Formats: sequence, C-alpha cells, structure tokens
Amino acid sequence: MRRLNGSAGGEERDFLAAEEPLEIRVEDHSIAVVMRTPGEDRELAAGFLVTEGLVRAAGDLVDIRHRPHCLQSVLGDGRQRDEVDEAVNGELLTPSDGNVINVRLKSPESLDLKRLTRHVFSSSSCGICSKASIEAVRQQFPPIEDDFEVASQVLLGLPAALASAQETFKRTGGLHACALFDSDGNLLVLREDVGRHNALDKVIGWALLRDRLPLRKHILLLSGRTSFEMMQKALAAGIPIVAAISAPSSLAVEFAHDSGQTLVGFLRGERMNIYAGANRVRQIESSLK
Amino acid sequence: MRRLNGSAGGEERDFLAAEEPLEIRVEDHSIAVVMRTPGEDRELAAGFLVTEGLVRAAGDLVDIRHRPHCLQSVLGDGRQRDEVDEAVNGELLTPSDGNVINVRLKSPESLDLKRLTRHVFSSSSCGICSKASIEAVRQQFPPIEDDFEVASQVLLGLPAALASAQETFKRTGGLHACALFDSDGNLLVLREDVGRHNALDKVIGWALLRDRLPLRKHILLLSGRTSFEMMQKALAAGIPIVAAISAPSSLAVEFAHDSGQTLVGFLRGERMNIYAGANRVRQIESSLK
Repeated sequence: MRRLNGSAGGEERDFLAAEEPLEIRVEDHSIAVVMRTPGEDRELAAGFLVTEGLVRAAGDLVDIRHRPHCLQSVLGDGRQRDEVDEAVNGELLTPSDGNVINVRLKSPESLDLKRLTRHVFSSSSCGICSKASIEAVRQQFPPIEDDFEVASQVLLGLPAALASAQETFKRTGGLHACALFDSDGNLLVLREDVGRHNALDKVIGWALLRDRLPLRKHILLLSGRTSFEMMQKALAAGIPIVAAISAPSSLAVEFAHDSGQTLVGFLRGERMNIYAGANRVRQIESSLK
Repeated sequence: MRRLNGSAGGEERDFLAAEEPLEIRVEDHSIAVVMRTPGEDRELAAGFLVTEGLVRAAGDLVDIRHRPHCLQSVLGDGRQRDEVDEAVNGELLTPSDGNVINVRLKSPESLDLKRLTRHVFSSSSCGICSKASIEAVRQQFPPIEDDFEVASQVLLGLPAALASAQETFKRTGGLHACALFDSDGNLLVLREDVGRHNALDKVIGWALLRDRLPLRKHILLLSGRTSFEMMQKALAAGIPIVAAISAPSSLAVEFAHDSGQTLVGFLRGERMNIYAGANRVRQIESSLK
C-alpha cells in the first residue's frame, strides 16, 4: 500500500479487514453465499438459520461443520459421506480452512427450502410492497410484548463499552460491529464483520449455540445504521431493544413500531433519539437540578 | 421520535432515510428484490442489470417501467399487456407509485436467467472459494488496461465536492453516497441510498441510460467502505479508479490488483492510501519546498 500525505509518500503495510465468501448449506443443500470476515463461521451459519426462521433452539441442530469447497479436489469422486467428514475434520482439512459450512438438523424431514426468507423474497410475484413484507415477517416472528425497562444511563454507557472492546476496528477501520448487552449494560459478546448482517448473525448464533434464545431483556448495539433487515433479524432472536450509533431508515422505524421493539438511534455522548418503544427507556431525573 | 439529552427530553420530528423494497423484473421475470431508497428506480434497475452482466449499452434496452405490485388489485384478471401498461403509465398509477419495475430487452430471446450472478452464486455447489469467484467475474468483465492518470490533488479535492453536494445526507445521516467524477474532478452525478450497492447501481444506470458506458477515464468516490462487490460493480462499468473515504476489505484490494483497477482508501484531508494501481495517481511535488 502506498501512503500519500501532502507531497510526501511512501510504501507501508496496512491491516485490512478480511473478506471471503462463505457458502452456507443445510443438509448439503446450498442455501446462501455471504461475503463475510472469516471466523466464528459456526455462529454465522447458526445465526443465519435463526434469522431465516429455520431453527429456534440449539436442540434443532445436530452439528455444524466446514466442508472442502470442492470435494473432488480433496478426495476424488465416489467417496462416502463419513469419509468426507473424516477428511474435513481430520488431517486433510482443518475446520478453519473452509469457505463452505454444512448444518445438519435434528429433524431434516421438516426442512422446507421454500420457507427461506430470501427465496420467498426472490420468487414472490406479489405481496412484496413494504406493508406486505412486514406482515409476512410478523407472521413468522411474533411481536415482543413485555415490561422490560432500562435506565437511559445504561444505554448512554454502551458506546464506550463497545469502543473499548473493538480492538480490531481500531486497526482496520473496515468492520461493522454488533454487541449484545444484558439489562445492566454488561457486554456479553461482540462480533465484527465486513457485513453488518453477518456481525448480527454471529451474535445471534453465539446465543443459539449457548441455548440462550430468545434474548428477552437484552440490548443490541450496532456500530452503524439500522435497516429494516437488521430489525427483522433482532426480532427473530427476540431482542426487545436495538440501539445504534447512527440513523435508522424509515422502514426500520415502521417495523419497530409494528413489532413492539424499542429502536434508539444517534446514541452519542449524553444524547439519543428514541424512534419506537420509548416506554422501555426510563429517564432518571438529574440530581444536579 | 423522542429525543433525550442528559436529563432533558422532548418529542421532535426527524427526517429519516426512506427504505422500501423494489422488485426488479426482466421481461416480467422476477430476478431480485432490493431494499432501496425510492427514487431513480429506472437507473437502479438499469445499473443492476449492467453489474449483473445482462446489458452493456442503452441499445440493449427497450424500456423500463414501473408496474403495480399486484396487477389484479388495479385491473382484475384477464387484461392484456397493453392495457396494463396503459394503466401503469396512465391515470391509474403514476410511475413513481410502484415498488415493482420491469425491464424489456431488445433481444429478450438472449435472456439467460442462469447467467445472473446472484443465481450462480446461490446455486453453485463448487467454485465459490474467493479465487474461483474472482475468476468467474474476470471472465465476464475484462480487466482494465489503460494509461489514464490523475493528479493526486484532483483526488484530494473529491471529498469536499461530495460533501457540498450531499444535502440529503446532512439531513438524515442515514444514506450511503456514491459519486462519479471526470478526470478533472468535476462532479457528474451523485446518488444516495440506504444500500451502498444501490447507490452505485444508480450511478452506473445513470451512465447507461445516457449511453456513456464504459466509463473510461472516470473516478468513482464512495462515502464509506469498499467491499469486493463494490469493486466488481465498478469493473462492470469499466471504471478505472475507485476512491473511498474509509477502508477497503482484503478481497477488494485483491480484486483491484487482478482487474487492473486503482483503489484508494482513507481519502481524507491531505492524505490517502493507494492499495492498488498506484501508477494512475500522479503526485505533484510541492512548490513550497
């Protein structure tokens, strides 16, 4: 990399956020290819399946394993499934080598590929106006109704907790971050990725693999902007409060209202904007008045 | 929206970046649904088809028109295609009403839905490791070989030109921006969208509809980060220089090297990092030395 600064310049090394494709398969059926930062691939695959409405609890899964991207190149044709697994998880290929990951379900006979949101979105010839798509999601993931409440001071403290944990971000400047907090503002997990959807899927997958879904009484913090799809993924995991450093889109706000979620934006310094579900944010009157 | 500032709070109105789904159809076949900011939908559809490798010049298109999301709700069954078009573009529905847009090709018989990148990506069971996917793109879009050169001072001036043009961004803080400049640093077109891919597709569609592709000797400026997919779209339009305010991903840099593109990141103040194709950036020695 060549760095220019005014009229000065020189060759330097730089850390870049890694980006590679991951093919996600369910029972050896390819269902998606995502461009992601390698690492926590099992969480990413698990979280993706949660947010696509395919699994709800750790017990729905048998295992999640990397596979070689091209079996023939490793084993030749005609080998059996067990031999392939042995190769993938044995000496020929370590789990971290792969850009293909396969998920086995406890009840594979219930697998209905048509239920996958992306496929429904892509093949639907009607009902894709925003209202219809929101209603389609609401059928799949019920709205959140609870009396969960956090003090505004807890929310105001989250960005600093995120920043101090974001070592990678400081180095590359190229990653989206997504963090999960408990009701006292304690950081439970932080994930970063070149794709913000992936960062959120990894957080949700982390929770699924620990059998902690749904994430009632938790707070999600996003480093960037909040889109419709991010709110939809949070709802799939049952998260009642989503806060972000930057702005939400119009449809994200509409979705939050309809799904009973709290949506906070521009969470910076002593300020925040509450776009939906303000009843969950308890404001403490200043004692300095 | 409720705004909190320390212990103070109040209800306020806020401008939000609009986000709605757009279904893109080719010859009435649904090929994608993108979450986009409404506006310049014809450019978005046109640019999307360029970056998917389906069209190359304005002459490949017959027309691009909005359609009602559900024809039955407007016309009932059994009407003819001409009647539908009349309804869409006549009194029943104005072109700006729709979240479905249909593209008609000059040579529809050449339409091969399997060629669409996303479909190839989703259904391919092999060849999806990063190397393979890059090679697949390179076959479709040839690398750029030219002697185009710009002064570093031209690049350093682009962020200010972008900022002064970004009225919407200042208002909502929720949009990605993408701008096209000529070799002297003159702004030709600026597009903003909740999705950065859409912003770039709109810019490329703008150029296609004016029959200006390929965009040799042009510079693309991105408000955010540069991913593999953004470089791929730029290559589809023949753009030799891509500059961004923030960082590129590792695969974006790799792709730029392989495709002969110049990739600049962290373009801020008097500084920039050149990750690939530094030969296109001519550094002027300071006259103050």
